[in-house]
Amino acid sequence: MSLTNASPLEAAQAAKSASHVLATLPASARNDALTAIHAGLTEARDEILAANARDLEVARLAAEHGQLSQSLVSRLDLGKKGKWEDMLKGILDVRDLEDPVGKVTLRTRLDDGLDLTRVTCPIGVLLIIFEARPEVIANIASLAVKSGNAAILKGGKESTESFVAISTVISAALEKTRVPNGAIQLVTTRDVIPQLLDLDQYIDLVIPRGSNELVRYIKSTTKIPVLGHADGLCSIFLERSADAKMAADVIIDSKTSYPAACNSVETLLVQGPALESQFPVVAGALIAKGVVLRCDAKSKAALANKLSPDLSAKIEDAGDADYDTEFLSLTLAVKTVDGLDEAIGHINAHGSKHTDAILTSSPELAEQFMSSVDSAGVYWNASTRMADGMRYGFGTEVGISTNKIHSRGPVGLEGLMIYKYQIRGQGQVTAAYGEGEGKKRFKHERLPL
Amino acid sequence: MSLTNASPLEAAQAAKSASHVLATLPASARNDALTAIHAGLTEARDEILAANARDLEVARLAAEHGQLSQSLVSRLDLGKKGKWEDMLKGILDVRDLEDPVGKVTLRTRLDDGLDLTRVTCPIGVLLIIFEARPEVIANIASLAVKSGNAAILKGGKESTESFVAISTVISAALEKTRVPNGAIQLVTTRDVIPQLLDLDQYIDLVIPRGSNELVRYIKSTTKIPVLGHADGLCSIFLERSADAKMAADVIIDSKTSYPAACNSVETLLVQGPALESQFPVVAGALIAKGVVLRCDAKSKAALANKLSPDLSAKIEDAGDADYDTEFLSLTLAVKTVDGLDEAIGHINAHGSKHTDAILTSSPELAEQFMSSVDSAGVYWNASTRMADGMRYGFGTEVGISTNKIHSRGPVGLEGLMIYKYQIRGQGQVTAAYGEGEGKKRFKHERLPL
Repeated sequence: MSLTNASPLEAAQAAKSASHVLATLPASARNDALTAIHAGLTEARDEILAANARDLEVARLAAEHGQLSQSLVSRLDLGKKGKWEDMLKGILDVRDLEDPVGKVTLRTRLDDGLDLTRVTCPIGVLLIIFEARPEVIANIASLAVKSGNAAILKGGKESTESFVAISTVISAALEKTRVPNGAIQLVTTRDVIPQLLDLDQYIDLVIPRGSNELVRYIKSTTKIPVLGHADGLCSIFLERSADAKMAADVIIDSKTSYPAACNSVETLLVQGPALESQFPVVAGALIAKGVVLRCDAKSKAALANKLSPDLSAKIEDAGDADYDTEFLSLTLAVKTVDGLDEAIGHINAHGSKHTDAILTSSPELAEQFMSSVDSAGVYWNASTRMADGMRYGFGTEVGISTNKIHSRGPVGLEGLMIYKYQIRGQGQVTAAYGEGEGKKRFKHERLPL
Repeated sequence: MSLTNASPLEAAQAAKSASHVLATLPASARNDALTAIHAGLTEARDEILAANARDLEVARLAAEHGQLSQSLVSRLDLGKKGKWEDMLKGILDVRDLEDPVGKVTLRTRLDDGLDLTRVTCPIGVLLIIFEARPEVIANIASLAVKSGNAAILKGGKESTESFVAISTVISAALEKTRVPNGAIQLVTTRDVIPQLLDLDQYIDLVIPRGSNELVRYIKSTTKIPVLGHADGLCSIFLERSADAKMAADVIIDSKTSYPAACNSVETLLVQGPALESQFPVVAGALIAKGVVLRCDAKSKAALANKLSPDLSAKIEDAGDADYDTEFLSLTLAVKTVDGLDEAIGHINAHGSKHTDAILTSSPELAEQFMSSVDSAGVYWNASTRMADGMRYGFGTEVGISTNKIHSRGPVGLEGLMIYKYQIRGQGQVTAAYGEGEGKKRFKHERLPL
């Protein structure tokens, strides 16, 4: 592990070369490294939180002057209730997961004495670029080491103090382990992102963690595959048969438990008949929690009948753009739909394929919703904020992917693996096989794993 | 299925919208469509081969004038022994494979009444761009229909006659099935590739089948993920303990059974001590088959001692560039190495991460080679030409991937699938879970699949 001022090229070459060693370390060596990281961070809690407080102070000032968004400040805060504990717990959770390296996922006897085996192996070198969220460093370092991947970490300027503090501790901790120096590269030099994104011969996967703008910029400028999401535009469809109290609980959690998170709900679709029954209960609860509703005409009218004039006055009018907006704040767009098909159509057209939920008491409608909505997470009667590696039982995550290939949804260890095909033969040649006379046939016999 | 002059945008929109229907068709409907395609092609054999012969005639003329490579002409030939039969057999093989849609790959009880399920689903819309190899149309159409993906097919001008002939038959065959019109789009208008590559909101994956130049061009110009390979620079390491006869057989097959194929061997690494024993046997056999050897000084000297003067005179001198060249012809670069580590280092540095083999009688060295070489296929005592979806038992393939994410090696049905996470709950919210007092814990209990 090195905290360097190395050039991007040097960092990438060192990471590639270390990746070949890291990939062959036994699980015990990789697990020992995680134990060491956990111990180091536990001991250095106070210094790290003090460094984070300095980052926060600068960020709050910038936010007051309108130079930084409030949601970024919120993401930066490592002192936020439970965040530090979650970060540390994540390291041990990852350590205690099953080793993802070397798992046999397919065995086929092609012919006598000719066996095909598919075995999992690390991807190689990951480039992680993040803005705020300093806990990401520990998450990513843990997942990289456990999965046998080398990683290059590049932090944003907003989290510099936290980044250096955490990095220094991880660096010192890893020095006593068998993980090779260079397997985790921490790049602190500035303005190197374009150069890193150009090194597709050394870097196998880019994982950006930050603003939509950062992710979009990265996706449009690199040939390296990018894993992650730009937008998190999650929707909830409130169907007419949903229990009103349950609906209010789920929508409150989805909207207010962490409004800056990508898995928070941004659009509420209400079935017409629910406007008069469940929706006023839900809306009242949301407004009481400080949520600003941007309603279409029908849903606004429904509330005018049911809410007190002062509450009703707080309702804003939705414009078309609101249904394509990730607010990342306590604003929620509300739209009335006829039924399931319109809801599915709206989500597939306006959503970001992240996580979408239906609230209903009908299993049939729920199954239809889950099969037709083309998103990484499709939920029935549960909060969209469940979309999270820790909650899914993956220990932690490197990010949440809205990609349609490789990994989708919260990405843990499995998402950082690829595989290779091995063949063990006795000199077999392809010309001997075929359909013609005197040709052998492949047996293609599935063997137990 | 439509053979259209639609604009790229219209084709992509139609494919996206058809993909939502195709994804919900039962396996029986998708299988019936493959039966219909097979029957249609069987019946139209003569017309299609006649159309292919017209393409071939034009291509051969162009090759004579140096405007087309001989390897492209070879790939174009649908009348080549066994190719037509393989193509037809591939359709039924794919049909008879297990349905890849809707497979549950993870079930976790997050809490009582809160279950997480990961279920396979199609990726969405594939864009397949190919130059020659007309059989690819049938392969890809079969894999797309079976896997529930819509596909846009764009053929190259060299295979236009074959493309139109095959497409027309497939189109007519599918019209009698439940596969929606538009699920397979055949774009025949010219010069539309740049426009198609720009439609990342509709197209989820690009699969190029053609020259290295085509693949490189596509990889460098689109934000859509690209699955495939530009280079197929495969190497074989001839270790000192290998059986000479076996080595000669495997290397002959790897080099000469289809020199234009991506899985043919391009570089032979010979361990020093094998120069005097196994290598002359191998070299003699290769030269007898018309292979031109480009040797480094040591391997050339070894042959001078063992081969007759007239054979020895045919040996060429290798330059550095030869070890980075995919010849796609009967030329083979030969390099002497000290041992396993140098061979692994050379392959990881100069290879294309496609398929590489070791010839040895030592299981230990073979295992070390297979674990350290970072390629999609790593073989022990078998021909590199085994790297093929049909030979692997996948029915057929959409291509061979050297990507480090999603799919690697021959890509069959599994490689065309992604998954989604479903949660079935009873109104659970995330705020109820955590480490603090009064908080619930997730159970994360693995359930049987």
